[in-house]
Amino acid sequence: MQYIQYSDKKDLDRRIKRPVQKSEDLFQAVQKIMREVKNNGDRALLNFSVRFDGKAPKKLMVDKESMNKNTKNVPSDLKKAIDHAIVNIKKFHEAQITPPLKIEPSTGVICEQRSLPIEKVGLYIPGGTAPLFSSVIMLAVPAVLAGCREIAMVTPPDENGNIPPAIQYAALQSGLSKMYCTGGAQGIAAMTYGTESIPKVDKILGPGNQYVAAAKQLAFLEGVAIDMPAGPSEVAIIADAEANAAFVAADLLSQAEHGIDSQVILIGTDNSKLKAIEQELARQLEELPRKAIARVSLEKSLLVKVKDTNEAMTISNAYAPEHLILATSNARVLAGKVTNAGSVFIGTLTPESAGDYASGTNHTLPTNRAATAFSGVNMDAFMKKITFQELTPQGVNAIGKTVVTMAKNEQLQAHANAMQLRMDNIKNTQP
Amino acid sequence: MQYIQYSDKKDLDRRIKRPVQKSEDLFQAVQKIMREVKNNGDRALLNFSVRFDGKAPKKLMVDKESMNKNTKNVPSDLKKAIDHAIVNIKKFHEAQITPPLKIEPSTGVICEQRSLPIEKVGLYIPGGTAPLFSSVIMLAVPAVLAGCREIAMVTPPDENGNIPPAIQYAALQSGLSKMYCTGGAQGIAAMTYGTESIPKVDKILGPGNQYVAAAKQLAFLEGVAIDMPAGPSEVAIIADAEANAAFVAADLLSQAEHGIDSQVILIGTDNSKLKAIEQELARQLEELPRKAIARVSLEKSLLVKVKDTNEAMTISNAYAPEHLILATSNARVLAGKVTNAGSVFIGTLTPESAGDYASGTNHTLPTNRAATAFSGVNMDAFMKKITFQELTPQGVNAIGKTVVTMAKNEQLQAHANAMQLRMDNIKNTQP
Repeated sequence: MQYIQYSDKKDLDRRIKRPVQKSEDLFQAVQKIMREVKNNGDRALLNFSVRFDGKAPKKLMVDKESMNKNTKNVPSDLKKAIDHAIVNIKKFHEAQITPPLKIEPSTGVICEQRSLPIEKVGLYIPGGTAPLFSSVIMLAVPAVLAGCREIAMVTPPDENGNIPPAIQYAALQSGLSKMYCTGGAQGIAAMTYGTESIPKVDKILGPGNQYVAAAKQLAFLEGVAIDMPAGPSEVAIIADAEANAAFVAADLLSQAEHGIDSQVILIGTDNSKLKAIEQELARQLEELPRKAIARVSLEKSLLVKVKDTNEAMTISNAYAPEHLILATSNARVLAGKVTNAGSVFIGTLTPESAGDYASGTNHTLPTNRAATAFSGVNMDAFMKKITFQELTPQGVNAIGKTVVTMAKNEQLQAHANAMQLRMDNIKNTQP
Repeated sequence: MQYIQYSDKKDLDRRIKRPVQKSEDLFQAVQKIMREVKNNGDRALLNFSVRFDGKAPKKLMVDKESMNKNTKNVPSDLKKAIDHAIVNIKKFHEAQITPPLKIEPSTGVICEQRSLPIEKVGLYIPGGTAPLFSSVIMLAVPAVLAGCREIAMVTPPDENGNIPPAIQYAALQSGLSKMYCTGGAQGIAAMTYGTESIPKVDKILGPGNQYVAAAKQLAFLEGVAIDMPAGPSEVAIIADAEANAAFVAADLLSQAEHGIDSQVILIGTDNSKLKAIEQELARQLEELPRKAIARVSLEKSLLVKVKDTNEAMTISNAYAPEHLILATSNARVLAGKVTNAGSVFIGTLTPESAGDYASGTNHTLPTNRAATAFSGVNMDAFMKKITFQELTPQGVNAIGKTVVTMAKNEQLQAHANAMQLRMDNIKNTQP
């Protein structure tokens, strides 16, 4: 890790900046894929699968019956773990649903707000060396809870042209009754325009590589909503003298093993603890199957020495990390000072992996400083809020004059008329 | 208006499609403006103001002292109306703030969700023939309620190079202490990159013309959040035999007077009522100062004859209107069947202008079918939700095995280790 003193503020600002991810080239390549899918539908999807995944999917759509059959051999301990995670994630997300709101700002002026499901959502599950069934749960559970009518989940084929069984199991248990086997930018394109097999959706959610992220941004330009922009995964850890060096090292490594572009920042108040963490890092790294990846991402990671946890929090809030671990004795107090982060892990016994899998929070979180303005995926991501208003005769009298005056001053006479007619009508019909 | 029978479904689908708004040319022109502001800051803003607004702003930033001075001559009836509207809008938006959530999905696993303000927001107020002070209220009131630390409001100069006094008054009364005098795509660029005078923000909100809308979409590609994509304003009205023809005509006209690209759809169950509405339309149109504009937008508007209000609601939900007026005797029941809309006006006494100005709901709403996936501006638009979790020793025991099993099956050994180390530690330290 690269050591840096907080007093070098200028240098720090520069060094906690993420590298710029997107190039013109990337967008152009992705635009070409999107156009191809728009024009040629399923056929384009199959061609791109051969080209990018090395294998065409055996079936573009897998139905519930097949999913049931395909998941028979998922190991029972994994089934149990997935079921357990779903219970917790369901509980925490269910509690987030906004109840209908109804108030009367002026007498006879009734204002309401209701949360309604987005009817058609598309969920993207990345491929990779291992099946990311946890992402299935994180997206499908809230979509089902929200009551989305059409839930299209897409994921690339494995080396045999199938959707990995653990992914199918997680989808089934989360309440889905079908899945689509197509990935990459072409999978996003399919949900943006619709194909013979795959429905056009109103919103696309889910993580993905830079091609998927670029495709989502282009989908947004086409009028499809997206959950958030995406970048490489990140963690910031604030550690004081009381931190457990082995725990902190393990947390750093569990971020670093994600990919060589993972971002890891350790902010510490105590020099000898930082040294101990570095020693632990070196020791634990050697035992990891993905040590080659973790080593690369650790090499460009930052270790920032600060005076106290307040300074640490200032850095963290400026960085706006996707994950923030508070490995300090005052973790609860510090948590109250967070202004920008995706998800926060409080205290020495709370590893990031708890939230990645089973605590109940969502692991689809804003990266690349998007946490300043974006929330992680939550129930709001699958719903929209519609407002309603109703005026009684009393309500018309209460705000009528205000509306007419404002409309006239904005030179919108018809707006004024629409209210004035109601006011006159009430005056004439009610003694 | 163009008459159409619901039974012509195919034709209807085609005809309720909005015209495609954005061209490559538009994006290229806006990109050029954005780049110029990025490179030359305030100087570029002043140049563009001369070019596009015909006048450079006298000052780029107007402070509270100046705002107080500049608003002395705003007519007192307008001041009173603005103050009244602010009270209602504040009440309805305050009630929307999500309280902190704290639950324990498994014993010892504490999950929380907290709404925190987006620190830096940019609010766009369009220029035009009349000062749109109502948009000031709709954006500034919730931004202040949310507790946003930096609120940058930009608006183009009037013909004298000033911000219109009514806009300054609405801003002051909504709680702002400064404003910026720059508009158009360059105003959005200023908030995207920051200039000498104008801060870079985390999110940009507010309505605007197609240049502003394109600039917001390009800002989104640069990592700045935006409220929603934008298109011309729209209303759908469902009217049955009980509707008041004069009211409905006035409501249609109050949408049509916005601009020649306004979208108006009237869906009616009763032929003689529809005829009466058309007669009223013709009569009221003649008396409007903006009749030339309203006439153009009415000419391409649709009048759809349906069998009953259920059919009407099917069309409306497929169209997903920005505003939906329910001028029917069963309006309350129909309101329960809305699945896609920005804001709904229930019953014969509730004109759209009530919500445009003073009922309490927000008038910054999703157009162009974005209501399928986007909410209008509400408190959520100025806040992000951060999740927190904390595990006690009991919590580690409750979900530890689940996390380890899932992590290993995703081939993320370091994720498993981070939890296993805590499990071992608890076993060793607690008898």
